[in-house]
Amino acid sequence: MPKTIVGVMGVGEQATPQEIETAYQLGQQIAQAGWIVLSGGRNVGVMDAVSRGAKSCGGMTIGILPRVDSEMSSAIDIPIITDMGNARNNINVLSSHAIVACGMGAGTASEIALAIKAKKHVILMTDDREAQRFFRSLNPELVSIAETVENALNQLKVILATQK
Amino acid sequence: MPKTIVGVMGVGEQATPQEIETAYQLGQQIAQAGWIVLSGGRNVGVMDAVSRGAKSCGGMTIGILPRVDSEMSSAIDIPIITDMGNARNNINVLSSHAIVACGMGAGTASEIALAIKAKKHVILMTDDREAQRFFRSLNPELVSIAETVENALNQLKVILATQK
Amino acid sequence: MPKTIVGVMGVGEQATPQEIETAYQLGQQIAQAGWIVLSGGRNVGVMDAVSRGAKSCGGMTIGILPRVDSEMSSAIDIPIITDMGNARNNINVLSSHAIVACGMGAGTASEIALAIKAKKHVILMTDDREAQRFFRSLNPELVSIAETVENALNQLKVILATQK
Amino acid sequence: MPKTIVGVMGVGEQATPQEIETAYQLGQQIAQAGWIVLSGGRNVGVMDAVSRGAKSCGGMTIGILPRVDSEMSSAIDIPIITDMGNARNNINVLSSHAIVACGMGAGTASEIALAIKAKKHVILMTDDREAQRFFRSLNPELVSIAETVENALNQLKVILATQK
Repeated sequence: MPKTIVGVMGVGEQATPQEIETAYQLGQQIAQAGWIVLSGGRNVGVMDAVSRGAKSCGGMTIGILPRVDSEMSSAIDIPIITDMGNARNNINVLSSHAIVACGMGAGTASEIALAIKAKKHVILMTDDREAQRFFRSLNPELVSIAETVENALNQLKVILATQK
Repeated sequence: MPKTIVGVMGVGEQATPQEIETAYQLGQQIAQAGWIVLSGGRNVGVMDAVSRGAKSCGGMTIGILPRVDSEMSSAIDIPIITDMGNARNNINVLSSHAIVACGMGAGTASEIALAIKAKKHVILMTDDREAQRFFRSLNPELVSIAETVENALNQLKVILATQK
Repeated sequence: MPKTIVGVMGVGEQATPQEIETAYQLGQQIAQAGWIVLSGGRNVGVMDAVSRGAKSCGGMTIGILPRVDSEMSSAIDIPIITDMGNARNNINVLSSHAIVACGMGAGTASEIALAIKAKKHVILMTDDREAQRFFRSLNPELVSIAETVENALNQLKVILATQK
Repeated sequence: MPKTIVGVMGVGEQATPQEIETAYQLGQQIAQAGWIVLSGGRNVGVMDAVSRGAKSCGGMTIGILPRVDSEMSSAIDIPIITDMGNARNNINVLSSHAIVACGMGAGTASEIALAIKAKKHVILMTDDREAQRFFRSLNPELVSIAETVENALNQLKVILATQK
């Protein structure tokens, strides 16, 4: 039976220390819940931190890489090499049962929008009020906000239970 | 020498009569400026209207279609069949020298975000204040707002002149 | 009404002088027949030669480019930037009404195979007997052989007339 | 550390009972060697059989699916939803450390050609002499032939050891 996959999207090179810390803890909690972490797979920012967090708790990690020569996070178990740049963002969201967005930037925004288009639930972990208002206005049923990792996990449990 | 291509993105089935009218006029103006219109190519909403507008003024139109069996606008000269669903949105923006977004929805939002990621100029034609604030906050230099078709055309002229 | 598009696929950096010459003449003949030439768009080999040939006769050319920073043939009118490497080969064949393969190599072979999978006609212009036998064995109705540019054009006329 | 992934490509709906049996045994042997099986993920032919074989020996399976609504093999652990049809074939080969092709058809041929283009080793398990001759002629160093599952496994061991 296919495993439950949680996509964690977020800022790359520009991630703040707090976003890195949040992503790391998210990875730990997702792994402890028995779910697989899916990310953009590169060796920076949220993608790297969430994967390292998951591995620190014995979890499994998938990285959907943009290029053949992308520098991969050392914490990826299953690298999927797309070689299609940001068009891979659509694969990230389609392959995830639910998505957490950690921080905000143009790449992350594209993933949230593609997720809504694909009718996937997205949990926003950002204090960017403009982003919160905009994405909630696009679809208030699919987009929610979490202020803490614990709250994000509780929301994921509800969302994923509904899908079964 | 490659022709100048202006991407016009926007709402499909849910487009309002005013968005349709704006897109049609945009297509006319872009064609009269001697540029090619690129859109998502389907037979609905902004994609269809902008292509019909361009053809009504003797312009040329490219449609980047999501599926082999997508219903194509009758006003497309050059259909590019990607068969890759919304992952084609990245091709739409990469192949355009500048982008106009007409109306707002999840698909359009993904294209604007991918355009910003790719360092393309985007002109927003929407009265959605949350969208305006959010995308302007992502990158105020690449994202601008136009209230009229005439204003959008004037902005396109400046943007495209800078690229030469 | 959408224009008729003929895809010409073939060897890149390793093209022989004779393949370059054949591709150039093919481009001339396709343009004179009123069809658009579609190729991989790069500045080398068959893609470049067929586009230059078409332009020398006033034709129109589409280039489906693999990368944002691919060096483009100077004879491309409409560059479509996919940024998805060889996965673009599927777009090349889906967007063409018929395909001519000029020379042989791994990339060209992938396009011929994808074309057959998509039920597109392919005309082989190669003296590689193994390639001829193999692709004809995959589908003898969709794959034919042309020894001269004139013969290829005559075959294209029959194939494209049947599609109307 | 990323796991070792073996791609097994092959015929879908038209697979023969013997190809199904070979694929099933291949899946068993690959799982017993500790490697992950990657396939096209659908519920038919070689993709389904190799995944079922791997699961019967406690292995792990990845399925790179063409569509959101593709019918998935019940033996897939990690479905990657590309929604990009046969353009996903490039992802299949780029994400595999080595490839085994079981049976022959247009889709399989495109994967072998894309694999050679990407400098991946391909082991052919087919008695199609034309296919053997053609792909060996494209690149005799990357393409080899196996007549039995045991022989394919021995070749994989050599190929994968060289990559470390």
